[in-house]
Amino acid sequence: MHLHGTYYRTIWPHPEDPGCVCTFDQRRLPFELVVEELRSYRDAAAAIREMHVRGAPLIGSTAAYGMYLAGLEARREKDPEKLLENALQELAATRPTAVDLFHALDRCRNVVEAGLPLPVMAEQLRELAGQIADESADICRRIGEHGLPLIRAIAARKPAGEPVRILTHCNAGWLACIDYGTATAPMYLAHQHGIPLHVWVDETRPRNQGARLTAFELGQEGISHQVITDNAGGHLMQHGLVDLVIVGTDRTTRRGDVANKIGTYLKALAARDNDIPFYVALPSSTIDWRLTDGLADIPIEERSEDEVHYIEGWTGSELHRVRVSPQGSRAANYGFDVTPARLVTGLITERGLCPPSEEGLLGLFPEKAQQTSTP
Amino acid sequence: MHLHGTYYRTIWPHPEDPGCVCTFDQRRLPFELVVEELRSYRDAAAAIREMHVRGAPLIGSTAAYGMYLAGLEARREKDPEKLLENALQELAATRPTAVDLFHALDRCRNVVEAGLPLPVMAEQLRELAGQIADESADICRRIGEHGLPLIRAIAARKPAGEPVRILTHCNAGWLACIDYGTATAPMYLAHQHGIPLHVWVDETRPRNQGARLTAFELGQEGISHQVITDNAGGHLMQHGLVDLVIVGTDRTTRRGDVANKIGTYLKALAARDNDIPFYVALPSSTIDWRLTDGLADIPIEERSEDEVHYIEGWTGSELHRVRVSPQGSRAANYGFDVTPARLVTGLITERGLCPPSEEGLLGLFPEKAQQTSTP
Repeated sequence: MHLHGTYYRTIWPHPEDPGCVCTFDQRRLPFELVVEELRSYRDAAAAIREMHVRGAPLIGSTAAYGMYLAGLEARREKDPEKLLENALQELAATRPTAVDLFHALDRCRNVVEAGLPLPVMAEQLRELAGQIADESADICRRIGEHGLPLIRAIAARKPAGEPVRILTHCNAGWLACIDYGTATAPMYLAHQHGIPLHVWVDETRPRNQGARLTAFELGQEGISHQVITDNAGGHLMQHGLVDLVIVGTDRTTRRGDVANKIGTYLKALAARDNDIPFYVALPSSTIDWRLTDGLADIPIEERSEDEVHYIEGWTGSELHRVRVSPQGSRAANYGFDVTPARLVTGLITERGLCPPSEEGLLGLFPEKAQQTSTP
Repeated sequence: MHLHGTYYRTIWPHPEDPGCVCTFDQRRLPFELVVEELRSYRDAAAAIREMHVRGAPLIGSTAAYGMYLAGLEARREKDPEKLLENALQELAATRPTAVDLFHALDRCRNVVEAGLPLPVMAEQLRELAGQIADESADICRRIGEHGLPLIRAIAARKPAGEPVRILTHCNAGWLACIDYGTATAPMYLAHQHGIPLHVWVDETRPRNQGARLTAFELGQEGISHQVITDNAGGHLMQHGLVDLVIVGTDRTTRRGDVANKIGTYLKALAARDNDIPFYVALPSSTIDWRLTDGLADIPIEERSEDEVHYIEGWTGSELHRVRVSPQGSRAANYGFDVTPARLVTGLITERGLCPPSEEGLLGLFPEKAQQTSTP
């Protein structure tokens, strides 16, 4: 998608320097657009670990490009195998719950262990990383194509020119992916097709990915939007100001329960109470076919209290964090919540839409039927 | 209640200087405890208008004390009647929607227009202001007494020593009132009776009254609590970590719809979805007997976008605001939402508990039966 009018992906090989891969330091967004040059697998690992890059698809691609850089480094080492093994281990240890990360590294390991001459291996790792990124962009584009008719149908029921009003939570946008995003992909495609949109962007405390990243993305694409506090969505729905909710998911069970950023469940309840369709966009890689009951089976990460006590923002010249709670008060910080399938209208996958149920998902992914649920 | 171990109300006449009324500059809480000395009705008006004081009961008492100060000032004026009329007008114009403010000023006007010698009038205004504050404290204490059995009953079902876990939203605490608070009154009384509590405090964006004021109040009283983002309550309820929700209300219709701080409705939905009792504590002065349908009839204030774009907090040495959204993005900022009576388990008033219905409210306030609803 576009930033300041230029088309970007979230990660790309440097066009002139083969020893360099470029990405954005997303910690500075939306206040500063900083291109970060990764020149070693350790740079890539640090970028993932310290959340310069975030979002499962981007993490996977960054790890793969990290292995490409490791492949180059191996050529200068006495013990290249050791370096490559260290790189695989170190990259895998950056974010222990990111399933796309392990998928990407498994594919890299196959190349590393294929017994190729080092220059060939490095070149193949580079191609693989590009392929992983392309696949991710393609999956997101297809999610967009399958979600587009939902928006088009709502637009068709409205007077010409009246925007379709979509609420989203957190950032399931292209900055978390390679291009298009997941929840945002139908919006970007609708916008490209000339359908007028207005997006309500949940701020998404504690880390404010909605206010900081989704609002920024949408603004850069010229899509009308307003940032709202996480408290406001219910009121908007009660007053007929939301036509559709689309969110992403970090993990989806085989029956369609979805674990997404904390607060998603509250929006699903409000959508149900006001008869507003609530869709979840997902690449099928987020489906954990071993799990059925999301509430019982998906462990919810508890994160640092400081994310609640402090808020980071821009002073006008720098990023600064300020404390919003009293010294001496404790906080609790749960990263995700589970929206049960009963509150989900439908799932938007790269293979199409389906009801949030085992039958629905297996209809699109019949090859998964033999994967049994672990009780 | 207590601050740093000393008992305070939120407003009190200076013990030695009859020309001075003391209150806190709540804009600095919880980071600095600043006692503000009001020495003229204009000081009082500014304190209300600029939100040094907030909360309907405290605003009403501050206005009444402002009229006491006006009574003192009138003794030094050539045209005391003009000054008193100006004071009534200026104080009434500070916060145009605060019903307690108008009630208090009506009572002050009766004293002003009684034709008393100025020194007697000033003394009567001082007594009236004290009486208004006492009444408010007494109403809150009674709300606490009527809510206490709810907490006691939950405690009785738990193993000894296990805390009753209460979730609250925004600040319906003593800092908004004179003493005890409304939603917090049952908690303070339960704590005084030795019932172990743990309170989940919603941060309450955009102005963070939960994180800043409720957490501070509870901490100063020694009540166990944790600040959570507004997104987190649903997850806690899904996992059995909330026994009871108690919130306040700014305006209540005759059938028990409640307009409270934005986001309250989402918590009511989650409480209902998880079979958790959801109570609303209110002084009967917040009941607008002319209104029935809260969603249709209660206008919701839209406030400055900047409250969403910026967050104010403490840098360690000063209050500072930082921007959390991109330059160029718009925001929307609705101050309140309406929780329909169907989601409310019960109302806690100064006369007792009742179901959220016209029958329930008229059972406690039969003298209001003749007040007709305006369609």
